[in-house]
Amino acid sequence: MSEPTNTPAAPDQQPAVPADAAPEGDAPAGPSKSELKRRAKEAEKAKKAAERAAREEEEKKKREAEATVDNASQNYGKLPLHQSQERLGRTYLKFGKLSQEDVGKPVVFRARLHNMRPQGAKIVFLSFRQQTHTLQGVLVASGDKDEHQVSKQMLKFAQLIPSESLVVVEGVIKSAEVKSCTIQNFEVGIRKLYTAVEVAQLPFSIDDASRPESDFQRMENEDVQYSRVSLPTRLDNRVMDLRTPANQAIFRISSAVCQMFREHLTSEGFVEIHSPKLQGAATESGASVFKVQYFNGTAFLAQSPQLAKQMCIAGDMERVFEIAPVFRAENSNTHRHMTEFVGLDLEMAIEEHYHEVLDVLDNLFLTIFRGLQSNYSHEIETIKKQFPCDDFLFLEKTLRLKFSEGMKMLREAGATDSEGNPIGEMDDMSTENEKLLGRLVREKYKTDYFILDKFPLAIRPFYTMPDPVDVNLSNSYDFFMRGEEILSGAQRIHDPDFLVERMKVAGIEPSSMQGYLDAFKLGAPPHGGGGIGLERVVMLFLCLENIRRASLFPRDPKRLMP
Amino acid sequence: MSEPTNTPAAPDQQPAVPADAAPEGDAPAGPSKSELKRRAKEAEKAKKAAERAAREEEEKKKREAEATVDNASQNYGKLPLHQSQERLGRTYLKFGKLSQEDVGKPVVFRARLHNMRPQGAKIVFLSFRQQTHTLQGVLVASGDKDEHQVSKQMLKFAQLIPSESLVVVEGVIKSAEVKSCTIQNFEVGIRKLYTAVEVAQLPFSIDDASRPESDFQRMENEDVQYSRVSLPTRLDNRVMDLRTPANQAIFRISSAVCQMFREHLTSEGFVEIHSPKLQGAATESGASVFKVQYFNGTAFLAQSPQLAKQMCIAGDMERVFEIAPVFRAENSNTHRHMTEFVGLDLEMAIEEHYHEVLDVLDNLFLTIFRGLQSNYSHEIETIKKQFPCDDFLFLEKTLRLKFSEGMKMLREAGATDSEGNPIGEMDDMSTENEKLLGRLVREKYKTDYFILDKFPLAIRPFYTMPDPVDVNLSNSYDFFMRGEEILSGAQRIHDPDFLVERMKVAGIEPSSMQGYLDAFKLGAPPHGGGGIGLERVVMLFLCLENIRRASLFPRDPKRLMP
Repeated sequence: MSEPTNTPAAPDQQPAVPADAAPEGDAPAGPSKSELKRRAKEAEKAKKAAERAAREEEEKKKREAEATVDNASQNYGKLPLHQSQERLGRTYLKFGKLSQEDVGKPVVFRARLHNMRPQGAKIVFLSFRQQTHTLQGVLVASGDKDEHQVSKQMLKFAQLIPSESLVVVEGVIKSAEVKSCTIQNFEVGIRKLYTAVEVAQLPFSIDDASRPESDFQRMENEDVQYSRVSLPTRLDNRVMDLRTPANQAIFRISSAVCQMFREHLTSEGFVEIHSPKLQGAATESGASVFKVQYFNGTAFLAQSPQLAKQMCIAGDMERVFEIAPVFRAENSNTHRHMTEFVGLDLEMAIEEHYHEVLDVLDNLFLTIFRGLQSNYSHEIETIKKQFPCDDFLFLEKTLRLKFSEGMKMLREAGATDSEGNPIGEMDDMSTENEKLLGRLVREKYKTDYFILDKFPLAIRPFYTMPDPVDVNLSNSYDFFMRGEEILSGAQRIHDPDFLVERMKVAGIEPSSMQGYLDAFKLGAPPHGGGGIGLERVVMLFLCLENIRRASLFPRDPKRLMP
Repeated sequence: MSEPTNTPAAPDQQPAVPADAAPEGDAPAGPSKSELKRRAKEAEKAKKAAERAAREEEEKKKREAEATVDNASQNYGKLPLHQSQERLGRTYLKFGKLSQEDVGKPVVFRARLHNMRPQGAKIVFLSFRQQTHTLQGVLVASGDKDEHQVSKQMLKFAQLIPSESLVVVEGVIKSAEVKSCTIQNFEVGIRKLYTAVEVAQLPFSIDDASRPESDFQRMENEDVQYSRVSLPTRLDNRVMDLRTPANQAIFRISSAVCQMFREHLTSEGFVEIHSPKLQGAATESGASVFKVQYFNGTAFLAQSPQLAKQMCIAGDMERVFEIAPVFRAENSNTHRHMTEFVGLDLEMAIEEHYHEVLDVLDNLFLTIFRGLQSNYSHEIETIKKQFPCDDFLFLEKTLRLKFSEGMKMLREAGATDSEGNPIGEMDDMSTENEKLLGRLVREKYKTDYFILDKFPLAIRPFYTMPDPVDVNLSNSYDFFMRGEEILSGAQRIHDPDFLVERMKVAGIEPSSMQGYLDAFKLGAPPHGGGGIGLERVVMLFLCLENIRRASLFPRDPKRLMP
């Protein structure tokens, strides 16, 4: 059967609560004016819900009255609460696995009711959703002598199912041409239709939450009207938001990055570690560390597994990695900072040169980029529909620039420091200049991914190993994607006396880090490593523009819920 | 060359600091008397170290004086600080990969100096260690016309290298018969010997830290004397302790468990998630949650990813898992409690029955057990040398008992509750009775692994789905290894109204968990899951007897360092 004409859904079928129209951004819910507006909207919602409930009650009574003549009454309705009453062992269809072989076969599946469109008095089109896939279902009133009875009451029941309800459907797969669903060559002829979980009221619709920015640009020229769902509204209602195809795909990509990170490193002889997040002392810098009430004392949340990783190397574990939460008590409210994020960390003993670490890290990223492009094209394409994005460019042999070469490119392009002065060779690189360098590199070398090596010693942490020749440089490096830093790393100082010397230069009292020093007194091999922010990699690879979109339940100075 | 006779090491070669002789246990360092003792020991240590330093200085001077006639001076010595001076691209030997093909070949490697034994005036035996492997090295004084010169000075240098120092060795692999090393059919003829990292003073020796309990039992009957290294001393000096072969192997096993957990679940369609550990409200039970100072407010550390996992299911992720730290502010000082441990969690939508979850979990454990026994036998054997352990028994088809059946077995064996009364059918099962049941099951069914299903509703959390028929039972289960619970799980209540009803029964004010309820109002499919404690699985599989031995840097109410 062909798809219906694009008739707008009846208002009472789409629980289309108008979404907060505030521009999308990082700020939390606004002042009292918008709060009042919100409350008014909620009152309106509640009214509509009450009306719907009344209507449903009426419909139910009608249905009951007509039940005596409903010869399809067994084929639809609300299922009892699922308490694992019985295990029939039926195979439930997954839309993603549908193939030509299924045509003509009876199937059973559970899915969300994505939307519904009646056509005339005898046909209802329903669109069912499973994760990133939608499948059209067709419910046609049967003749009295048909084997599978579909009564008028059943058609009405179908029209009253609230969007997002979970339904259990039995039917037959048919060949079809459907434009309005992701599955375009099949549909299901519905024989039985039950609701397993009915949903009352939605904060916004999946369709609205799935729109690309271009839809809103079209609003200016065309006679269309869309509700924009702001990022705070999405995050307040993250369960709903997670159901959009883009989000379903984003968190598959995130999962895949971790998987490839581990598989690659495991194949390189690394061992996975789990280091404690509760620390007895503030490591690295005390300023941005969260304090925890620990029985009668105080603990601190680990800002990185830096010390633990290095202790494992001193403990002869040779090559270790960790994937774990990292906590930063920085009051930064930017597109790329969170107070808790996922750190992908590694540390390894080196034999001759810290470039051994660089090689491991570089091969790791290439493995991840290639793996994503080869095996996750469906997810990448799904995300692009909402977040348009140029393909991520990278070279067969990764571009490695020295920090000084990067600075030279910037100077030649006229880059200045924050005060408008020409940048100096040993300056730190500002976030803005990093982005500019990313653009210059893309233009000149056709890559969105490169490495900067040999940073000035003065702008790196005290435990960074200095260059053996130039005392102003260090054995340290950053990795970049689309002009933003995604990894920072270095060869570390493994000699305790030299560490003390460097601490003093950095103005750190060695006794304040006795635990750190003690580990090296027991003898640590030369080593290096790096730390990657998972959400940054995902955000930059997919052009999500705000790191919160790459975090399931993001945390920032203003958000601890849900 | 055959191995040397077992002459005891000269006292100045072994920095054998007497270890704290307190019996091994969970208690922290003792009262002031033992503290005084410790300080006295430390003074003694310092004295010895000073003496050794003086001796070394003297030796150095001697060596310098003799240097004019030392034709091997290029073949030994202390290397400069490793700052990645050059990258020669040499391949460094890993002991674990030594094979017959290496015999006769020149090699270079880095290793710890494990110990040293001179034999006569012209031979020094050195034992080198890499992780779980030790290799014998032989240094023989050369004749004046030998191609590879080994001078008297070089022999002396070798004898003065402190244990645990990192050395870089060049030599030739030879066939040999060696009993005192883990590699028994090869040794290395040393041509060059350098120290890369010299270690001054050790809290205890690796040999002492590696002894099985049986060594100390032998002390009663035989004329031997060993230092026992207590668990607190080990944990205070964890970097040193991690170098024991048993620990090297334990954390490889731990890493392997995580790897198999993920690989199995990924193959079953699960997606990895990372949920936030900083929570705006205390979830589950407020009593045992850590408070965090969060800018101007308060946050709480997640006691489990329970809510987040369920929100992901409500967000249509279908099947999710997480490996992440879990925080419990319980003031429990037992062999099996820590304030921070690694949770292996999973949650999945179910189609017909919660036994779908049971099947996934059971296959997961079987995969892990089989994987460990097949692929980690070297590690398991290495650990057994220090921690003797019966092979872990499990059945092809896992034993699944109903809770009531378990209670019946206990009653028939005369088990009582904590007050000495016969246990009732709906009682909770005490830890002691769990262990007894483990023994009864092992005897009757020949398995160390089994499942208890259908726990009484009253002793499970409020969100547990009741049995569809017997209102006193629930769709919940525990998994056991060697009589200790390693996993607890259930079908969860997915209906928000029913959840509110159950909260009220449990005495929980629904408004206090509004965020939890909100997730279900958006419609969650029927689902279930479970949570596994990584360290418990590792401890029980390997008979480590204290969970701290399965944690890199354990945290308990009295330990936050290192």
